[in-house]
Amino acid sequence: MTARQFALTLSCPDQPGIVAAVTTALFERGANILEAQQHNDGEADVFFARFGFVLRDDAPIEAVREAFAAVAERFRMQWRLREPDERTRVLLLVSKFDHCLADLLYRWRIEELPMDIVGVVSNHPRESYRHLDLSGLAFDYLPVTRETKAEQEAEIWRIVQARDVELVVLARYMQILSSDLAGKLSGRCINIHHSFLPGFKGARPYHQAHARGVKVIGATAHYVTSDLDEGPIIEQDVERVSHTDTPGDLIRKGRDVERRVLSRAVSWHLERRIVLNGDKTVVFKN
Amino acid sequence: MTARQFALTLSCPDQPGIVAAVTTALFERGANILEAQQHNDGEADVFFARFGFVLRDDAPIEAVREAFAAVAERFRMQWRLREPDERTRVLLLVSKFDHCLADLLYRWRIEELPMDIVGVVSNHPRESYRHLDLSGLAFDYLPVTRETKAEQEAEIWRIVQARDVELVVLARYMQILSSDLAGKLSGRCINIHHSFLPGFKGARPYHQAHARGVKVIGATAHYVTSDLDEGPIIEQDVERVSHTDTPGDLIRKGRDVERRVLSRAVSWHLERRIVLNGDKTVVFKN
Amino acid sequence: MTARQFALTLSCPDQPGIVAAVTTALFERGANILEAQQHNDGEADVFFARFGFVLRDDAPIEAVREAFAAVAERFRMQWRLREPDERTRVLLLVSKFDHCLADLLYRWRIEELPMDIVGVVSNHPRESYRHLDLSGLAFDYLPVTRETKAEQEAEIWRIVQARDVELVVLARYMQILSSDLAGKLSGRCINIHHSFLPGFKGARPYHQAHARGVKVIGATAHYVTSDLDEGPIIEQDVERVSHTDTPGDLIRKGRDVERRVLSRAVSWHLERRIVLNGDKTVVFKN
Amino acid sequence: MTARQFALTLSCPDQPGIVAAVTTALFERGANILEAQQHNDGEADVFFARFGFVLRDDAPIEAVREAFAAVAERFRMQWRLREPDERTRVLLLVSKFDHCLADLLYRWRIEELPMDIVGVVSNHPRESYRHLDLSGLAFDYLPVTRETKAEQEAEIWRIVQARDVELVVLARYMQILSSDLAGKLSGRCINIHHSFLPGFKGARPYHQAHARGVKVIGATAHYVTSDLDEGPIIEQDVERVSHTDTPGDLIRKGRDVERRVLSRAVSWHLERRIVLNGDKTVVFKN
Repeated sequence: MTARQFALTLSCPDQPGIVAAVTTALFERGANILEAQQHNDGEADVFFARFGFVLRDDAPIEAVREAFAAVAERFRMQWRLREPDERTRVLLLVSKFDHCLADLLYRWRIEELPMDIVGVVSNHPRESYRHLDLSGLAFDYLPVTRETKAEQEAEIWRIVQARDVELVVLARYMQILSSDLAGKLSGRCINIHHSFLPGFKGARPYHQAHARGVKVIGATAHYVTSDLDEGPIIEQDVERVSHTDTPGDLIRKGRDVERRVLSRAVSWHLERRIVLNGDKTVVFKN
Repeated sequence: MTARQFALTLSCPDQPGIVAAVTTALFERGANILEAQQHNDGEADVFFARFGFVLRDDAPIEAVREAFAAVAERFRMQWRLREPDERTRVLLLVSKFDHCLADLLYRWRIEELPMDIVGVVSNHPRESYRHLDLSGLAFDYLPVTRETKAEQEAEIWRIVQARDVELVVLARYMQILSSDLAGKLSGRCINIHHSFLPGFKGARPYHQAHARGVKVIGATAHYVTSDLDEGPIIEQDVERVSHTDTPGDLIRKGRDVERRVLSRAVSWHLERRIVLNGDKTVVFKN
Repeated sequence: MTARQFALTLSCPDQPGIVAAVTTALFERGANILEAQQHNDGEADVFFARFGFVLRDDAPIEAVREAFAAVAERFRMQWRLREPDERTRVLLLVSKFDHCLADLLYRWRIEELPMDIVGVVSNHPRESYRHLDLSGLAFDYLPVTRETKAEQEAEIWRIVQARDVELVVLARYMQILSSDLAGKLSGRCINIHHSFLPGFKGARPYHQAHARGVKVIGATAHYVTSDLDEGPIIEQDVERVSHTDTPGDLIRKGRDVERRVLSRAVSWHLERRIVLNGDKTVVFKN
Repeated sequence: MTARQFALTLSCPDQPGIVAAVTTALFERGANILEAQQHNDGEADVFFARFGFVLRDDAPIEAVREAFAAVAERFRMQWRLREPDERTRVLLLVSKFDHCLADLLYRWRIEELPMDIVGVVSNHPRESYRHLDLSGLAFDYLPVTRETKAEQEAEIWRIVQARDVELVVLARYMQILSSDLAGKLSGRCINIHHSFLPGFKGARPYHQAHARGVKVIGATAHYVTSDLDEGPIIEQDVERVSHTDTPGDLIRKGRDVERRVLSRAVSWHLERRIVLNGDKTVVFKN
């Protein structure tokens, strides 16, 4: 993605003429399209697109936005225009295991991820992460028990609102969000979850996978819905394992695939490459 | 694997001294070990091993076998000695889709798979496979309905016995074996099955996977038990998919991963690289 | 890809307004775009796109073609319109090893590959492939020696012309095409080639790779240019290997990755998903 | 690997009876073998093995060591016995890019890697890594110019000797070691290097790969020899790329595969899973 590239992401009921209308509006306001991907869900009759474009020097983005708004209204679009240097306001939720947190922080420091981290929330105290550089980051220790869960979630929600959080990343946050909070964060909360062939329910999934003798283990990044592990899938990947791997080895290999899958999902969200399509996602990967 | 290589595969209750006893017996009868792998299942306290060896020119395999039998008795081993040119007697069961059949036949023709195909059984007529070269192969058309299932399975079992079948491969055989037949074939019947993250039950799994928006699809090769899709896993692998893939595309990509996974599993079985370990397998891959 | 889908593939010097012009022309003639991908090579300043579309029942494709031709002229486009049921006329060249041939024939039989095979040419006699079903296919045995090479290539070229061949696939054809023939087939001849990290020059590459102790082996499908193994890359993939693999094992694993990579490249070519971009390709994968 | 597990790694000229002699010696001194792998290089006629074992409570490791030493002498073995809690003394060399350093430090902190980091040496000042937690680690800033290279390497060598360094890891250390230093560190210095299909020589390899339109990029971890990028390969892996990836994207994806490959290689070295075999390695993976 070129530095000065805008990204326009949209979805709408399908009908003829959408692309022509969008691209004409962009062209007439001085936008030059550098990359574009479209997808039509034939079953749902919904159209999805992402346009990456640059502007002529004398062309103001406000004019593009205005022209496009008219098109969007005509086609009843949901849409979002991402500015070249736009940084998303992200809140990271984490528990004891910090491999995903460490990885996201590293990628953020070296500017792989165009986000502003407006806070790190954990149900473990700050000293749990003393080897990570949290300097300059707001850190909230919000312990949780069954009794205080509602209260703790209210505090999370307060933070989300107070800091204009645009994306919440559950970076191995081991608490199940209530349906209420999950609903409020719908479409802007990404979770990472282990996945296996076949699937396992219940506690200690890596031990179950070991007992079953699986040969691959996986991880799934998905948007959170009220049904925690069942939201729209963004990305999945796997690692090979064998009979020599102990449950501990599976957990270790799981860490690698979890951090890899989560960072891809977050990156695609930040670049506006993902559009929700009911229980599924359209991911316009680069 | 060198041409003249014997393979000794064994399992037994773990105790000290097994490897020393086995390797001393082999050495004293003129065997030179070229490759070996051992595994100890610490939970079940069972020991597994596979030794690949060649014989000195003046050393008869009978002497090795005899010497080893004494060791095996002492340690209560289950064991099997594979001769260098040994070919396993294999029965292939198939239904309408023949991608796994075509792949296994090809690998057999070019001598990738050391097996004798003693028959192909299908619930579809021979002309369904007119583009495959079945010349020289016994073909049995055994159609099946709910009413005739017991009878059809009896005929399969008769073939298994009459032809000394050592391995049955369900190469996309779309009939569920009865518990009775599955039990009789336990440990010598390999099935290939699609797998997904998460898993799906019921009909048209690729359509379910599409509806769920998965990003990887997989296949699992396993030994058949009375619980058809749940036997000990031998091998698994995956293919990446995206929102652009239709259910038809998933089925197409599924064919590729199914044939790849099944041929690996069959190959490892033929080379005696797999040992059953309860509901799991130990796979001594090369 | 939907059954009734047209595919328009194009490239041209980049300038503002291309997409708007194309999509407006399509829309006004009754075309509804279902999938589309665009790419801009910022260095070469060349624009690439592929549009998949269906037509309204009352809209003739001739009108689309005519309207688009005007656009194409204006923007100096190279373009191609693929009709829904279009089948490409393909000539397969093969030598002794037939794993790629067998795989392509299988995929063609089950209608994975929308092509008409107008001939199989080999420098080995037809009986070399007696286990493959070549019924209904023209087969030309064109043996070649250093002395007869020019003559043999002349005969290949005669076949290409006489049968209106649109794509030549070198399915492990072990003869190096002359610069002359390679040049004539430029952009319509796909080769499959082993690849390694690092690369090896000269004879017996799998033995060289074994001597070097590589841990992955690969295959590259590319368009043929006068410099045989150096044409624009279409697809690459790898298989893992280890110290236990003999040169023979590498060759076996090489077969699997070669056939997989070649079939993908051919499939993308047939669906007009590939556009040449100098020494590179743009591949609009699904 | 079980916590209390010893690991005996060895190589020697191949001859009959090695395994029997080794395992008998281990057994008689109270060792119970839990995992073992052997390999025979038929071309070089060299035997390689790794035995993981635990000791009976009343069995001293000294007795095992003594008994084994006699066997080793008899068979002219090179061997190494790793104690259960043994930690290797490691020196990390790094330059500007710190993705491999950050990854190794993280894995070390969470005890994935059984090593003591006895120093970090960089040709960049300590503040380059201010976001990494280097607390408690010796850090040496050793800038280097063409003129001072010999002197700087002498200082590195002094550190290696003074701190009893057992393994040097070039974690994206962008200086080419002199033949002299490389020779001194032979067999105990691991480097990570980008790899491509085909290979590229010279500067800015990712830009070359982009210009060539490759579809996979890779990384190779290898032991350093005087010929920097050509030492015995330990591990390789790849990432898929496409025409949409800029050189910057290739570098980003390269970071992921580089850190993954390097951490695997280091981990296997620390667990004594690697044995040198001329220009190749034998890797007894778990």
